[in-house]
Amino acid sequence: MIIIYSGGMDSTVLLYKYAPFIKLAISFDYGSKHNDREFEAAQYHTSKLEIKHIRVALPFINELFKSDLLKSGGDIPKGHYQDLSMKQTVVPFRNGIMLSIACGIAESIGAEKVLIANHSGDHTIYPDCRPTFIGAMNEAMAYGTYTNVNILSPFLNMSKREIALLGNHYKIDWSKTYSCYEGQDLHCGTCGTCVERKEALEGFDNTQYLI
Amino acid sequence: MIIIYSGGMDSTVLLYKYAPFIKLAISFDYGSKHNDREFEAAQYHTSKLEIKHIRVALPFINELFKSDLLKSGGDIPKGHYQDLSMKQTVVPFRNGIMLSIACGIAESIGAEKVLIANHSGDHTIYPDCRPTFIGAMNEAMAYGTYTNVNILSPFLNMSKREIALLGNHYKIDWSKTYSCYEGQDLHCGTCGTCVERKEALEGFDNTQYLI
Repeated sequence: MIIIYSGGMDSTVLLYKYAPFIKLAISFDYGSKHNDREFEAAQYHTSKLEIKHIRVALPFINELFKSDLLKSGGDIPKGHYQDLSMKQTVVPFRNGIMLSIACGIAESIGAEKVLIANHSGDHTIYPDCRPTFIGAMNEAMAYGTYTNVNILSPFLNMSKREIALLGNHYKIDWSKTYSCYEGQDLHCGTCGTCVERKEALEGFDNTQYLI
Repeated sequence: MIIIYSGGMDSTVLLYKYAPFIKLAISFDYGSKHNDREFEAAQYHTSKLEIKHIRVALPFINELFKSDLLKSGGDIPKGHYQDLSMKQTVVPFRNGIMLSIACGIAESIGAEKVLIANHSGDHTIYPDCRPTFIGAMNEAMAYGTYTNVNILSPFLNMSKREIALLGNHYKIDWSKTYSCYEGQDLHCGTCGTCVERKEALEGFDNTQYLI
């Protein structure tokens, strides 16, 4: 199997959970403000677990897509995922694009499954994280390949807090994961993903980004 | 609507059919031996019809995917699409990737539909041209976007000959379309797409590539 791996807490837990079976971890650089920081974090864990890790650049997203998550977009809004303002950080069909590319790579290298770490907390704001999308995309990938590549999305109906608890089981150092949309050295603590991260990691050790 | 446009005969007929409604034509450069020739042909028609036309580079496909259609692959096999050897020219999940990217662009620019020119002759060899794939991908795109972007695939159950007859209705100059997998100045006449093209255009004028 191969994994779509950002270096954030969700996909890092997924990386540890399936580590012995993962043939390749793929980080996508789609021109967001935080892709470089995420990548540093991702490198730390793939290197520790000795998993082959590549970075795939998708510069056309920053050039052609509309989203404040991108370098070409406006300021990152502050607040909770449920807030309407968060919609401006959505990168249209990002998961569809990453899954499609991962699907083609999977078929090319003889891997049957693509791992992705979307979870129930993403459903409100991201249409391409919902079960309806994952179900249809899974069918599209299976029908569209000779080897019937399919999606493994084990966190689909789990909360971020449940993922965090699972991460503690693997003794993950949270300070070595990164997700802040601002892309600065430390997590800003006030953007959508930081708010969500703080809630999920409440009471744990090493929850700031300290690399 | 936007169109995935190679510059081959099928997508050129589709371009003419929906020209007044097309906001953007996208040519993908995925590192195949014939992408540059296709692009010249595509430029000719989008320029003639005054349709905005962009080229999106996907260099990771040539670097990471396995297919003899790519510059990184082996020699192009000769023969008919039905031949087993043709399988080696399949670029894994190419339509899934192009549709996903087009879907994200469509949502970014406020277009609701993505046009694609797959047809019944493609079904034998390309899993991501079949009705089952198009149906599932259509659902994935609609579920995965706020604006429910969807696929328009009007040639899905048409033969290439029927598409060619429709193209004559639009007075398309076939010599200004390109599809040969070899990517030389003239169509080779013996690769899978050339064989199919010759059969479809039999008895018509200007069927060679002469730009």
